[in-house]
Amino acid sequence: MHPSDTPSPGSAFAPGSVAFTGAGPGDPDLLTRQALRALALADVILHDCLISDAILAEAGPDARLIETGKRGFTASMAQGDINALIVAHARTGARVVRLKSGDATVFGRLDEEIEACDAAHVPWRILPGITAASAAVACIGQSLTRRGRNASVRLLTGHDMTGFADHDWTTLARPGEVAAIYMGKKSARFVQGRLIMHGADRVTPVTLVENASRPDQRVLATTLDRLPEDLATTGLSGPVLTLYGLAPRAAARALPDLALPQMEFA
Amino acid sequence: MHPSDTPSPGSAFAPGSVAFTGAGPGDPDLLTRQALRALALADVILHDCLISDAILAEAGPDARLIETGKRGFTASMAQGDINALIVAHARTGARVVRLKSGDATVFGRLDEEIEACDAAHVPWRILPGITAASAAVACIGQSLTRRGRNASVRLLTGHDMTGFADHDWTTLARPGEVAAIYMGKKSARFVQGRLIMHGADRVTPVTLVENASRPDQRVLATTLDRLPEDLATTGLSGPVLTLYGLAPRAAARALPDLALPQMEFA
Repeated sequence: MHPSDTPSPGSAFAPGSVAFTGAGPGDPDLLTRQALRALALADVILHDCLISDAILAEAGPDARLIETGKRGFTASMAQGDINALIVAHARTGARVVRLKSGDATVFGRLDEEIEACDAAHVPWRILPGITAASAAVACIGQSLTRRGRNASVRLLTGHDMTGFADHDWTTLARPGEVAAIYMGKKSARFVQGRLIMHGADRVTPVTLVENASRPDQRVLATTLDRLPEDLATTGLSGPVLTLYGLAPRAAARALPDLALPQMEFA
Repeated sequence: MHPSDTPSPGSAFAPGSVAFTGAGPGDPDLLTRQALRALALADVILHDCLISDAILAEAGPDARLIETGKRGFTASMAQGDINALIVAHARTGARVVRLKSGDATVFGRLDEEIEACDAAHVPWRILPGITAASAAVACIGQSLTRRGRNASVRLLTGHDMTGFADHDWTTLARPGEVAAIYMGKKSARFVQGRLIMHGADRVTPVTLVENASRPDQRVLATTLDRLPEDLATTGLSGPVLTLYGLAPRAAARALPDLALPQMEFA
């Protein structure tokens, strides 16, 4: 069976509808074929400011690109305005792509926008994307789960609506636990303190991946003990995914052209 | 900047190397462009038996396809034999794709194969894929995380090396917790029992997505209370991703051509 003969669930992208699309971590080659098609077909693309130029270059020549300006937890456009913009463009009959970093369902603040579409009877669907944890762990040559080590992995955020996010530190502090921490730069000292207070080993490996999958990707291998200091010293300025409980695999360090192509400092 | 001018980290796929490639959940349109290129270039593709024909059809015309026969936790080819096969093909100078469902770093049993490559000095890299949780939650129109509800999501398996996997049920039983349970069919009654014992609300929504993203995708919306019975009655025979703490969004139910294209029974 040729793939083009295979009906793709919900593959239609109808005029007047919205595709909430995961852009992946930054490398345009990590876009899915489904997302690439949506970008090529879209009349309007509303995108966060973290979306790379290389990904926006996948838009069709006549697509209108609108930056909504969200960067982490600062919104330069209010959420209500973004919702209204999505609905307004869909109502003109445009094919609207709402493009979000990584996977839109993981710390993507998707629900308010979907609810706005529902309230306005604008049809929508979600196109999955590669989440930052997948790209970050791949580049250090490790798995998020491993038999005999961890039967679960947590994706968590350093922040929530009220400030630093609280988590079940007792469980996370146990040996072998693995977590991918999104937006964890500002909360690094808080997370470190909570984990050590709950008994985590100070030499637990922690790896920070800045700009995962992008040409300017950087990997910082450290430990729980040294995390805040190393973070301060190296001044990572791009989006960072923090892998708690994982160190880069030795062979991944040794094969810069294959597995860790960018500068690594540790 | 045109994307083709953008250096993709480690985009080379050298003869004699192995690309551990995430095939995504089943829809070939959910392959990344990077994975599609690897499939087109590969001389040898070693794949699990869960990989769909539609995905294998993306292989180049001269590629040799070898099924390793893993299905869940039964291996029809011993892991040592798979490791040896990967290494042997790479040593002939072949470009080897080791194709795994979803994202290879999530319950993909990747590490032993990487270690075999390292021991044999065979270069390798990991190509991220869409994990089943992303595809499953997209099809029910929900997010894995939501501000004010959950600042973390857990990916966990119903099984580990010793049988049913133990988890921190106390935390998972709290209101608002969300988990994506991989390979959770056999352990459904165990998981239900543990969660209720630790205080989980019996009416916590649970959604099972069988064959996520495939033409034969099915969605079963139930509750923690009814989970084992509903699972037994409906006889889901394909791979199932269990979304604990999430129900399909009402609008996703109402838009079968956009968001829930396949039969839904609840």
